Amino acid sequence: MQAFDLHQHLIGRQGSRRDLNTPALVVDADALERNIARMAAFAKASGLSLRPHAKTHKSAAIARRQIDAGALGVCCAKLGEAEALTEAGIDGILITSPVVGAPAVARLAALAGRAKGLMAAVDHPHAVAALAASGAALTLVVDLDPGIHRTGVASPEAALALAQQIDAAPGLSFAGLQFYCGSQQHIEDFAARREAIVERTDYLKSVIALLTEHGLEPKIITGGGTGTHAIDAELGVFNELQVGSYVFMDKQYADCDLVGDGAQAFETSLLVDARVISANHPMLVTVDAGFKAFATEAGPPPVVSGAPDGSQYRFMGDEHGALIPPKGVAPPALGEVVTFAAPHCDPTVNLYDAYHAVRGDTLVDIWAIEGRGRSA
Amino acid sequence: MQAFDLHQHLIGRQGSRRDLNTPALVVDADALERNIARMAAFAKASGLSLRPHAKTHKSAAIARRQIDAGALGVCCAKLGEAEALTEAGIDGILITSPVVGAPAVARLAALAGRAKGLMAAVDHPHAVAALAASGAALTLVVDLDPGIHRTGVASPEAALALAQQIDAAPGLSFAGLQFYCGSQQHIEDFAARREAIVERTDYLKSVIALLTEHGLEPKIITGGGTGTHAIDAELGVFNELQVGSYVFMDKQYADCDLVGDGAQAFETSLLVDARVISANHPMLVTVDAGFKAFATEAGPPPVVSGAPDGSQYRFMGDEHGALIPPKGVAPPALGEVVTFAAPHCDPTVNLYDAYHAVRGDTLVDIWAIEGRGRSA
Repeated sequence: MQAFDLHQHLIGRQGSRRDLNTPALVVDADALERNIARMAAFAKASGLSLRPHAKTHKSAAIARRQIDAGALGVCCAKLGEAEALTEAGIDGILITSPVVGAPAVARLAALAGRAKGLMAAVDHPHAVAALAASGAALTLVVDLDPGIHRTGVASPEAALALAQQIDAAPGLSFAGLQFYCGSQQHIEDFAARREAIVERTDYLKSVIALLTEHGLEPKIITGGGTGTHAIDAELGVFNELQVGSYVFMDKQYADCDLVGDGAQAFETSLLVDARVISANHPMLVTVDAGFKAFATEAGPPPVVSGAPDGSQYRFMGDEHGALIPPKGVAPPALGEVVTFAAPHCDPTVNLYDAYHAVRGDTLVDIWAIEGRGRSA
Repeated sequence: MQAFDLHQHLIGRQGSRRDLNTPALVVDADALERNIARMAAFAKASGLSLRPHAKTHKSAAIARRQIDAGALGVCCAKLGEAEALTEAGIDGILITSPVVGAPAVARLAALAGRAKGLMAAVDHPHAVAALAASGAALTLVVDLDPGIHRTGVASPEAALALAQQIDAAPGLSFAGLQFYCGSQQHIEDFAARREAIVERTDYLKSVIALLTEHGLEPKIITGGGTGTHAIDAELGVFNELQVGSYVFMDKQYADCDLVGDGAQAFETSLLVDARVISANHPMLVTVDAGFKAFATEAGPPPVVSGAPDGSQYRFMGDEHGALIPPKGVAPPALGEVVTFAAPHCDPTVNLYDAYHAVRGDTLVDIWAIEGRGRSA
């Protein structure tokens, strides 16, 4: 892998970060470890289990750190991600998106035979029937639509019918409910976010009550995210949290008041180091990072260091970006390294094969992103 | 690699495309081959050389087809891409972005020793000095800024000074000029595009005249793109075209009248097959392709087949999209495969490890994307 070939010799060498070939995906290992420890302590104090979402980092090295800090395992968004992390030795995986279609069902059945503690989410009777017909021994959670119509059954009655179908199928076992309020995660104001989640949690309670009434009490109630974890813990209905972005805290989440007191509980740890590769204009320089180096759907990446305060980034196509200092201030020189925060962590990570873990200005390790590109 | 492991057994099996694990990057091999043949015939008829841009496809299999059809070699946007394609046996590479910084200069010098016919673009005296100091034997083209201030020297005088510096440096050799009018490529109206290019070509001529006057006549004049190739050929100043997107013809280019008669010279050949993985809502279903399956900066991907006419795609986060049929029309069923065109080819390709080459509904080959993620 390119990152290992190019940079193995820099590990542990004082100040070696500046010698990275750019663009390079960089993790501030100190900040990452503090984020992992903080969320672990929060979950412990709240009496909640953690199964952090690995769709954010796609990496066994980070999953292992989360598990070492007390997590039960990790969530994966896709079957391919779960295969990659299982291969790398991670147990306790919950696949949070429905696995549908004959090729995928066969792979899931095979994975169940080698992945310890594997679980998967389902939201449709046809999918449950296909899994039952595969003959695999599988533990399933029923996914509830929180109202965004992305995935999940549409009503308490549909949840009950699916749980009953699972319970009746030899090989399949009903473990609980999944409820991910995706659209509520990024409501910037804490009170408004809390109000939205309280309403949705009342709905979740009604589903739990119906299932319990029919003898199918859900043991696992999983969901929540970085944006709502404090509210979810306070409301006390979930017993497992799927928080993902807290490890990196991208721009989207950094704009949210996560705990209701204006304080930021987590630190930005995911960075991209880029380099000035063209400097022929007095008002801007060009860095070597564009659409192929940053996720683009969350706006431009914030400048963290290496450029004058107030400098802005503007996308300039597939491979490049403009770095624009404030009026009258000189831009960085040719060859200088500029550090950016990821605009949106998950799809930014998915562009790279490895993390460069740094402490200060020294490269301390390189971590493979085993799940990169494993969208199928 | 996942695509090979999962799909090798499907190659050549009638109708096997429907058994691909999704999302899958698919190339219509017939359309691709017609596109390659058409551009090759156009260049030949125009007396122009072709060095197609491999930043679009990042693949030796496609580069080889372009070279077999008469191309001199390919362009690469980044050093890592050039290393990957050299490793895969492709010669005649021109690196079109400046290679800057000590680690990259050392790699370029090493690559020059093993890559047949390698050339690189430069735009700054410091960069030329660093390349000269590396001791490598390198052939260079001077990159001219067409006015977008991304890369390139800012004036005819700066171009002359850089060419003289190269010419004077032992080891370095001056080959010509690069002039890529990026912002003009996507002007939808042919006449407006032509007018913009005529003006820019007059500027290019003035640079050529100045260099020639000083005994440094540029042998190679390289540039142009899919959007302007017909105009560039007519104006007769370039002798090498860097066209890239014509192999795939994404949505951005499909909206442009490329040859001025309203006819479309090239066909859409780059597709993404996705699958309906949730279908609990009467008005929409969810497919397994989101921010990690499509480039996001060029809008939503157009629906090509597998869904009712007039169906629209809407991004629903990292892993999912909504497929919305026209009002009153039923969406496709759970498990159905829906085919999309790439919204923007280059950054979409960069998300995948391999192309699934199909003819009709049969998988006929799997091609590695050796340059994927090689942005450094």
